[in-house]
Amino acid sequence: MEKIKIVNTASYVPAKTVSNNELSQIMDTSDEWISARTGIKKRHISVGENTSDLCLKVAKKLLEQSTWSAGSLDLIIVATMSPDSYTPATAAIVQGKIGANSAVCFDVSAACSGFVYGFDIVTQFLTNQKSMRAMLIGGEVLSKVIDWTDRKTAVLFGDGAGGVLLENNQAEDSALLASVLKTYGDSHEKLTAGQTRPLVEFPPLERTQLHPFDMDGQAVYKFATHAVPETIDEACQKAGIDVSDVDLFVLHQANARIVRSIAKRMKQPLAKFPINIDEYGNTSAGSEPILLDELVRNKQVERGQIVVLSGFGGGLTVGTQVIKF
Amino acid sequence: MEKIKIVNTASYVPAKTVSNNELSQIMDTSDEWISARTGIKKRHISVGENTSDLCLKVAKKLLEQSTWSAGSLDLIIVATMSPDSYTPATAAIVQGKIGANSAVCFDVSAACSGFVYGFDIVTQFLTNQKSMRAMLIGGEVLSKVIDWTDRKTAVLFGDGAGGVLLENNQAEDSALLASVLKTYGDSHEKLTAGQTRPLVEFPPLERTQLHPFDMDGQAVYKFATHAVPETIDEACQKAGIDVSDVDLFVLHQANARIVRSIAKRMKQPLAKFPINIDEYGNTSAGSEPILLDELVRNKQVERGQIVVLSGFGGGLTVGTQVIKF
Repeated sequence: MEKIKIVNTASYVPAKTVSNNELSQIMDTSDEWISARTGIKKRHISVGENTSDLCLKVAKKLLEQSTWSAGSLDLIIVATMSPDSYTPATAAIVQGKIGANSAVCFDVSAACSGFVYGFDIVTQFLTNQKSMRAMLIGGEVLSKVIDWTDRKTAVLFGDGAGGVLLENNQAEDSALLASVLKTYGDSHEKLTAGQTRPLVEFPPLERTQLHPFDMDGQAVYKFATHAVPETIDEACQKAGIDVSDVDLFVLHQANARIVRSIAKRMKQPLAKFPINIDEYGNTSAGSEPILLDELVRNKQVERGQIVVLSGFGGGLTVGTQVIKF
Repeated sequence: MEKIKIVNTASYVPAKTVSNNELSQIMDTSDEWISARTGIKKRHISVGENTSDLCLKVAKKLLEQSTWSAGSLDLIIVATMSPDSYTPATAAIVQGKIGANSAVCFDVSAACSGFVYGFDIVTQFLTNQKSMRAMLIGGEVLSKVIDWTDRKTAVLFGDGAGGVLLENNQAEDSALLASVLKTYGDSHEKLTAGQTRPLVEFPPLERTQLHPFDMDGQAVYKFATHAVPETIDEACQKAGIDVSDVDLFVLHQANARIVRSIAKRMKQPLAKFPINIDEYGNTSAGSEPILLDELVRNKQVERGQIVVLSGFGGGLTVGTQVIKF
């Protein structure tokens, strides 16, 4: 068991919010329909800020709240499915802007599971190089990739970023008790976004287009409500604890009904499953760290508690960490 | 020192080639100009195959050449800056199509350094979980992201993929002797591709566009010819060997002049620096594994030799592994 410690948390969302009622003015939908089916009331939408801008705000907060200097960081990973660009990596842009000149930087693409995948990857580094200082940020500007005329997907997503500083601190009680990642690539077509097609002729007549979200909502719902409890069970077993020992389940906020269904399936009280999707919608890789940061700030998560982080989404992917916070 | 072993290598490039002369018919350039400045004679261009298709061909070859079954794979990482989509990850598509149901899959975004970054990340996993079986593929369909009217960048790039199977085999001599990664995010604007801008208003009037390559060639040249020798020196020092002990330097093929300049700066014979850019152009994350696979097939790399892998590019990023093959 490695003494991986979440040193601190931070989050940032763009100021502009778009309510369900506002969406109903640009597409055939309603507050009632969206609320009942997803739990979403509004979402934050970035106008003018790109993914690296959101992540930069998070990175600065994380450093300000800590005793760490930017120069002392060894690793910056950004989990995102809406990077500023194919290159440079969003993590490299953040590194350049905070002056973390010693940090190795790359982005990880695992969609809504990006944060928990990134957490596992950071842990691999911290286990091998115990004095490393790592920054992990999940951030998205999904509004770039949304078809704002498609009521099936446009109502679901929002923009935002959250992150953590991580260290391997043998002197403290905090620890990563278990981590389980799974990928179900046979279902890769169930949730797609940002597709680019290869050329159909050379020289090409047209510029490559970025295709917006497309989703088989029912398939993803079914996947999430089965795969998430499975990985949580497996991770708790690996950690040597009972599921009932978990104080809080910080689940990816894709849909309030998915969260409630998972709680029910796991026979755990709904009070252990905080929900903030009403405010943010689905922020993909930003989702768990934004929620975790809120919980830390509200003192709903405190040192010594057992916290489960669980993400799921495109890939399809799923991942769970069991953490002694 | 971990006994990380490159079990085998494979590569795949699309059948269609486009010569410098053919390019000169669609833009104001010439074979003479391109050859003299870059060493490139032609490049393979994908018509109809996406990045996951190229990577799938590599994945199948890797398995066919080995005793490993798809089901025995624990980890698939695809390094790419031209994924099929923001989600699913290219690695997940490959996993689904080969039936590697137990493998954890994600993409890594570190541009032309993607393969060496991915190699380091795989090593972190294999060091912690010594029985893991990993597949690492670097693959690109950069033709999607090229502005085919821009002679400054269009002549430089090509499509292709290469990969390796990796294990941690204590019983064998093969080993990763050292790995060094560096990121220079303060220069992130020197090489960009696949940029997407945030919305400028809500609701947006236009769909998000994918911006093609843009590059400060001189800055990248200067960076590469300094940063690559630096990381090779550092990695050789870490490995406890002299640079002259290295049998072959498998460098990212961005430009033949960069390779020659690095050889000269390092005072090593040019014969130790194989070049295949004439055939492929710059295939970014596909570059080193395609070259490595050619060298293995031609028996220019053999077991027991000391091989340096070195990548550099967007981020800016650079990375070097010193390997006992």
